Amino acid sequence: MLNLAIIGPGLVGSEFISQVLKSTTRTFRIIAVSNSKRMVLSQTTAPLTNSSWKTQLESPSATPTDLAKLAAHAASQQEPCVVVDCTSSDAVAECYPVWLRMGLHVITPNKKAFSGPLPLWDDIQKAAKEGKAHVFHESTVGAGLPILSTLRDLIETGDDITRIEGIFSGTLSYLFNNFSSPNPPTTPSTFSQTVSTAKSLGYTEPDPRDDLNGMDVARKVVILGRCAGIPLDLTTLHVENMVPEQLRNAPNADAFMQQLPEADAHFAKLNEDARKEQCVLRYVGCVDPNGQSSVKLAKYPLAHPFAALTGSDNVIAFTTRIFPSPLIVQGAGAGAAVTAFGMFCDLLKIDRILSPHA
Amino acid sequence: MLNLAIIGPGLVGSEFISQVLKSTTRTFRIIAVSNSKRMVLSQTTAPLTNSSWKTQLESPSATPTDLAKLAAHAASQQEPCVVVDCTSSDAVAECYPVWLRMGLHVITPNKKAFSGPLPLWDDIQKAAKEGKAHVFHESTVGAGLPILSTLRDLIETGDDITRIEGIFSGTLSYLFNNFSSPNPPTTPSTFSQTVSTAKSLGYTEPDPRDDLNGMDVARKVVILGRCAGIPLDLTTLHVENMVPEQLRNAPNADAFMQQLPEADAHFAKLNEDARKEQCVLRYVGCVDPNGQSSVKLAKYPLAHPFAALTGSDNVIAFTTRIFPSPLIVQGAGAGAAVTAFGMFCDLLKIDRILSPHA
Repeated sequence: MLNLAIIGPGLVGSEFISQVLKSTTRTFRIIAVSNSKRMVLSQTTAPLTNSSWKTQLESPSATPTDLAKLAAHAASQQEPCVVVDCTSSDAVAECYPVWLRMGLHVITPNKKAFSGPLPLWDDIQKAAKEGKAHVFHESTVGAGLPILSTLRDLIETGDDITRIEGIFSGTLSYLFNNFSSPNPPTTPSTFSQTVSTAKSLGYTEPDPRDDLNGMDVARKVVILGRCAGIPLDLTTLHVENMVPEQLRNAPNADAFMQQLPEADAHFAKLNEDARKEQCVLRYVGCVDPNGQSSVKLAKYPLAHPFAALTGSDNVIAFTTRIFPSPLIVQGAGAGAAVTAFGMFCDLLKIDRILSPHA
Repeated sequence: MLNLAIIGPGLVGSEFISQVLKSTTRTFRIIAVSNSKRMVLSQTTAPLTNSSWKTQLESPSATPTDLAKLAAHAASQQEPCVVVDCTSSDAVAECYPVWLRMGLHVITPNKKAFSGPLPLWDDIQKAAKEGKAHVFHESTVGAGLPILSTLRDLIETGDDITRIEGIFSGTLSYLFNNFSSPNPPTTPSTFSQTVSTAKSLGYTEPDPRDDLNGMDVARKVVILGRCAGIPLDLTTLHVENMVPEQLRNAPNADAFMQQLPEADAHFAKLNEDARKEQCVLRYVGCVDPNGQSSVKLAKYPLAHPFAALTGSDNVIAFTTRIFPSPLIVQGAGAGAAVTAFGMFCDLLKIDRILSPHA
């Protein structure tokens, strides 16, 4: 049996709790839940249940959040404990080394620790070894798609990475699958109209510049690179910011959206140039062992797997010595259900090690 | 450290030995190698090396193959041992339960045990539990592609399978990607010409009827079904045999190839009918929890991911509750290097459990 300490039970965290507590083959016990303000620590005799943790977090038994106390509680139990960070907080990410050295395992979809400063990344790897603890973060790239687990297998079997290339943003996938389709409609939408539709469908961040600036994709490329043994850094990676320069200082999302049509001619020309070469536009991240890693808008031939993408799917292509024609993984790369699924897969990795005959 | 006992060191087995002995992060020791006639068992002091096992298998120290002796030798060592079955033998497959009950782990690309009689499948699962041993066979479906590991995660997290559909034969992938391309050449090849080309490239079995009868794909569908908890059986699965009835009794491969043009009109008509519906032909295997599992030639729209397939790639689409738009894995699904890679991934699964902090 594994204990779980959940930090940040929002949309993804709640879904994760719901998925793991339904497991019929393995037993997980929630011994702590904490949001940014309050936390509940279980009594040994009464683990938190799917229906009780929310109520308890709002009840008088909840105390002000203190992650040091939470970790001490988690480490004091007889059974091993996995701390599940469902936040996107830098402060929580910085706790991983301490937790790992206490022997607490960590799983998380939080990209901060793995795409932030390299010393933190290095310390996490070192702490996991020292604490004989496991840290997994499949959902930081492509949510539940088997991407980091596949990369780990490629690396640990001694394969050589030639190139890792993919579409890692559901938002930007949707945007360019529609704006630059292999089979465009007779009256195609402008770039700003396509962004506007994506925004109204809830596919973009509240301010679409947070998608268009490429930083979310950049974090995923940094994580992939580091998992492949290439010490990429967010501050030096080449990232094409698609927010037009004159719109970067627009005071808010509404002002930005109002001005965005100014950029339509620019994107229409890029699209037209691509079409002339029988290509479509896709916003891709690329890990290149030869130093040319990048995040950029690029042209792909109509027959390329990236061109045929639909909806808001993610896709990744691993080109390696053993897979000269790439190994491709494709599917939904965003959303609470698939993110929680990826975290559950990480939890299974740990439970299979600790209870191999469950 | 893990010991390895290799049975059937042919093309795949040799490649596997070569890959694992190159590992820089984990240590594996070969303590037995056996082909169908002779075997070598290591002395504790002298494990077999990449350069020595072949010589030793031909030397006077080699003894007649006796798998019971080999298993006893493997089980008598202090370290855990993985028996690696690189044969396609029914007789070797039938030994798995005994080995597992002795605590020997098993990994293999041999489909026989997992697609054969259900009682053997059941006994293997039971034996693994009783012996607290692991059995993995990723390479039985799609070689090194992360297919069975992904399916295992979907099942163990409690996701519900709606449908598993894929192109599981590199040969038949090549055949129909070329015969029924979304962008056919101006003078397309006939079906028999396409088979003939595939044969001359070494993509088919010596007798192409062994590909066209669909039995290899059927075995993979049975394995996928069983891994998904659906007890499919080779003898009752609906399998479309593409060998024309009048050619099934042709005395040999040459006679078959000579007569195959008789079937060209039939396949040309199927292709033409598909094209009229803006579709291509693909030979697919399908696992359907509602009892309609099958292996058949089917039509796919030009925009479907299966239509865009090139070369001899395999592809699999998992449609589930959590992935209503399917999770797709694609890439090379045949060849010694990728098959051995899939076996190496299985070996890592076991080593990560037994040596979690290596």
